[in-house]
Formats: sequence, structure tokens, C-alpha cells
Amino acid sequence: MSFLASSVMHVDIVFENGVEHIKLLKGINDEHGGVIVEMKEPMAPEVFVTVLRDSLLQWKHQGKKGVWIKMPVGLVNLVETAVKEGFWYHHAEPNYLMLVYWIPETGNTIPANATHQVGVGALVLNDRRELLVVKEKSGSFQIIGLWKIPTGIVDEGEDIFKAAIREVKEETGIDTEFMEILAFRQSHKSFFEKSNLFFLCMLRPLSFDIQKQELEIEAAQWMPLEEYAAQPFVQKTELLKYMNDLCLAKIDNGYAGFSPRATTSIFSDDLGYLFFNSLDLDQSNADDYSGKKK
Amino acid sequence: MSFLASSVMHVDIVFENGVEHIKLLKGINDEHGGVIVEMKEPMAPEVFVTVLRDSLLQWKHQGKKGVWIKMPVGLVNLVETAVKEGFWYHHAEPNYLMLVYWIPETGNTIPANATHQVGVGALVLNDRRELLVVKEKSGSFQIIGLWKIPTGIVDEGEDIFKAAIREVKEETGIDTEFMEILAFRQSHKSFFEKSNLFFLCMLRPLSFDIQKQELEIEAAQWMPLEEYAAQPFVQKTELLKYMNDLCLAKIDNGYAGFSPRATTSIFSDDLGYLFFNSLDLDQSNADDYSGKKK
Repeated sequence: MSFLASSVMHVDIVFENGVEHIKLLKGINDEHGGVIVEMKEPMAPEVFVTVLRDSLLQWKHQGKKGVWIKMPVGLVNLVETAVKEGFWYHHAEPNYLMLVYWIPETGNTIPANATHQVGVGALVLNDRRELLVVKEKSGSFQIIGLWKIPTGIVDEGEDIFKAAIREVKEETGIDTEFMEILAFRQSHKSFFEKSNLFFLCMLRPLSFDIQKQELEIEAAQWMPLEEYAAQPFVQKTELLKYMNDLCLAKIDNGYAGFSPRATTSIFSDDLGYLFFNSLDLDQSNADDYSGKKK
Repeated sequence: MSFLASSVMHVDIVFENGVEHIKLLKGINDEHGGVIVEMKEPMAPEVFVTVLRDSLLQWKHQGKKGVWIKMPVGLVNLVETAVKEGFWYHHAEPNYLMLVYWIPETGNTIPANATHQVGVGALVLNDRRELLVVKEKSGSFQIIGLWKIPTGIVDEGEDIFKAAIREVKEETGIDTEFMEILAFRQSHKSFFEKSNLFFLCMLRPLSFDIQKQELEIEAAQWMPLEEYAAQPFVQKTELLKYMNDLCLAKIDNGYAGFSPRATTSIFSDDLGYLFFNSLDLDQSNADDYSGKKK
């Protein structure tokens, strides 16, 4: 399903006997029987309320279901009007508020807002079994003085594996190649009501001279893996111990994580990355993927 | 990090010489040097602007950084005032808008909003190599008439594996036990600007009599896996073919996906599920997890 509104909304304006009549909001249809209006031009709330009511009446006649209004922050003066006419908040970004309204008498099937932030942690090991670690300048890890792996948040629209490469580069200056996701963890209420999905990634270093980032990173180094693991906080913290054991299982015992492969979407040619245990899949029934026979 | 605001904001009111002075917004401190204000009581915009300005001055003196105002939809009349004072939208849910402001001169480190919706698809196979499939009543799959696996969106705060169990139950009435995540796929701009993470799950059926859901499901049945895979749309769609091959690799060739294990968080005892290749981890260096020796 796609809710992308590419065309621009405008208001029909008709002149009758020299009098300007602003008639209806114009939107584009979505794939679910709804309409998406992208507000652009300033409008007085007194005008907006009339246009909005007339538009809703027409959409009702047309059998429309959901009505979306993307309201830029510059038109904040129209938000109160929309809410008083029955719209509610769907989601917001710094520059706009998305309002939504449900026309039918039946219960609404408006999809929920995004629910998860996505984070990455990067295990980067060199040939001497040294792990790339940093000390942060602020936050909970700074307080306990832990040497930790680079971590960060996946940007909007960013691929997970690219985020891992970017975070390592930003924090330490090290270039890397992505290998696998060893594990991931879902946690709730990590950011207000939102959940978090954290992906533990393994990357191969392509450079070795550390250039630490000044703003957030106190120190960075290649640290013997055993020394990292021996830190008391790692020893006593279940999740960090799992992460360390997964790292050891990978480098010493052929642990198979999930690696990304670009695939097209079901109803479009949009590429996305499918992550799976490619070692096991390629060894099984799918000789068409890798060219290898069973 | 936690941004949960549990206490309730109120406004200090002081009487001087019988005159009521509304003084400052009260918030609670967050862990990042910021303050979170939860607006509750109605207030006139003319009053709010004064209180807000005085509060910002005090927070600035206190060296505060980010200021969050959670504004319930009932106080929509105050949103314009906040925006005009320099607040911007952070995120919104049906009942409130979260506004944010950055006090220091330096660039802001306000974390981004949630970026991903999370979806699940459920592979449920019985002992006769029959796959639990449905036909939907609307949407793109209905148009092409595909027999497909049950899918759905993970609710806010819901565990991925519980969502898979719930969706199967809702759409088909079948009880299941969660086994593994075989793969996941990240795609972008799937819902306005938001990305999607779709988890392909394998579940074991615990009951077999189908009771299909009326609202969204046209039909549901146990279908021989080969018949499902032979559908032309499955054959020609890369992603569906991968999903089918992963299913076959799992049931015929011991493909190892990721299974969930409850672990506590790093800085709290909050439980979350870590998903990893437990077969490989338990067989490697971690005999303390499963009790098995190498």
C-alpha cells in the first residue's frame, strides 16, 4: 500500500458576478477509497471552515472514506478549525501535522502511526581479535565509563546496514563493509510510547586509523576482545554478555546471522533489503540464488 | 534512555495582594538535561503565551536543553501560540501533539520521531504440508485473487511474535505457537514518509478448525504447499518466491532462523526479546544458555 501524495492540492476558485467563491479543497485519491489534501496556501480560518465543510459534504457524496490533511507548520492557525470539525491528529514531523477524518458510519480502518525507532550497534573486529570501541561524552554509558561498540539511530529512509556503516565512520573514522545482522532486540516504551528495534551488526574494517568524532566521543580504540568482555559491566549485564557471546560464536564457530539481499517489492519494482540466513538458504533448495548446487 | 513522563504538570499560581499570578509551567526533568511538560488544564492563549515565555526564561537560566510540551487535542487552541514562540512539532498521536523547543545556541540533539511501522507474516503448516492461507476482501491482494499467508501490523507496544500469533487467530481462528523469524525486509516510504520492517514468521498450529474473520477475510483454508507455490503470482514475484523457498528450507533442510529469548535491558530490568540463531549459539561457546555442552 502506498500513501504517497505527489500532486499538489489547491482550492478551486470561481468568480461569479465578480464575486470570488472559494469552493472546495482538492486532494488526490489514495488506494483505500480515501483522499489526501496537501495544504499549501495561507487561508483565514473563517474561510477554511466553510471550504472544509463543503469539501467533506462532497467527499461524503462521493463515498470517500478517510480524509487526510497534511498541514504545514506555517498554517498552524488552521489546526484548531480542523480539530473542531472532527479531524484528529495522525502523525507529525517538524514541518507538518497530518490530520485525519473518517467519513463512513462504520469503524475506521485508518492505519496506525509508525511505532518503532530503529537502532544499530556495530561489532567491528580486526585481524588481531581487537574490537573497535568508544567511550561516549554523555549519557548513561559515560556515567559508568564503559568501552562500548559504536551505536546509533537509523535515519528516516535509511537502510539498516548503511546506518551501521555510517555510525562507525562518524564515531571513529573507520571505513567498513557490512557482513551480517547477528541478532536484534525489540523493547517497548524506549522513547515516550514508542518501541525500539535494535540490530546487532557485524562489519569488516576496511581502514584502521581511528579519527574519533569530537562532539559525542571521548575516546576510541581497538581493544582486545577479551579485555572488552572482561569489563565488569559487560560481565554482569545479560544483554551485553549475549552480544559478546554472539560475536565469539560468529568469529570462532561459524554462527550464521542474517545478511541482506536486494529484492523488489510485491506490487512495485521498489528495491528493499531482505535479511535472512543466506548460508542455510543457499545450501538448501535454492541453487538459483547463489549458483551453487546442493 | 527513557523519555517517559509519569508525573503531572501544573501551573504555579500565586496570590499577591489578592491578584492571581500564574507563574510558570511545571515539568519533570528528563535524563538528557531537558524538561517535559504535560499540559492538562484549559488556558487562554493570552495567558499561555506569558507563562510560556517566563518558563522558557527560567529553564534557560537553569541550563535546560530540550523542552517538550505534550499538548492534548483538547488544548488545540494553544498550539499556534507554542509554534509562534519557536516550538516545532515532534510527533503526534490521535489524542495529543508533542511539541519541542531547543534552548542552547548549539545544534539540537533532539531524537527523531519513530520511523518504522512493523508488520508480520505468518507461515503456519500442518503435518500434511498444508499451508494456512487466506483471501482478503479488499486491497491489492484481493484484486489479483491471491491465496496468501495471514499478515498484519504490530500494534503499539506489542511483541513481534505475539502479533504473529494474534493475526493468525484473528484472521483464521487457528491457535499457534511461535517458532522462528525466517527473514525480515526493510522497505521505505511504505506509509507516507515512514519505512516498514516486515518479519516473516514460522508458527506451529495448535488447532486446525478454521473460523475465518468476517470483516476482512473472504476465505481461508489449509492449502497444499505446492499448490500455494504454483500460483502464477507467487512464481513471478521475487519476494514471494524467496518467502516460499525460505519455508521449504526450514521444513526440509534445517534452515535456522532467529528465535526470541527474553532478556533484561542494559540499564533496567525491563524485559525485551532478543532474536538470534539460537541453534548456532547454543552449539558454539555458550553452554550456559541451553545447558548443552559443545
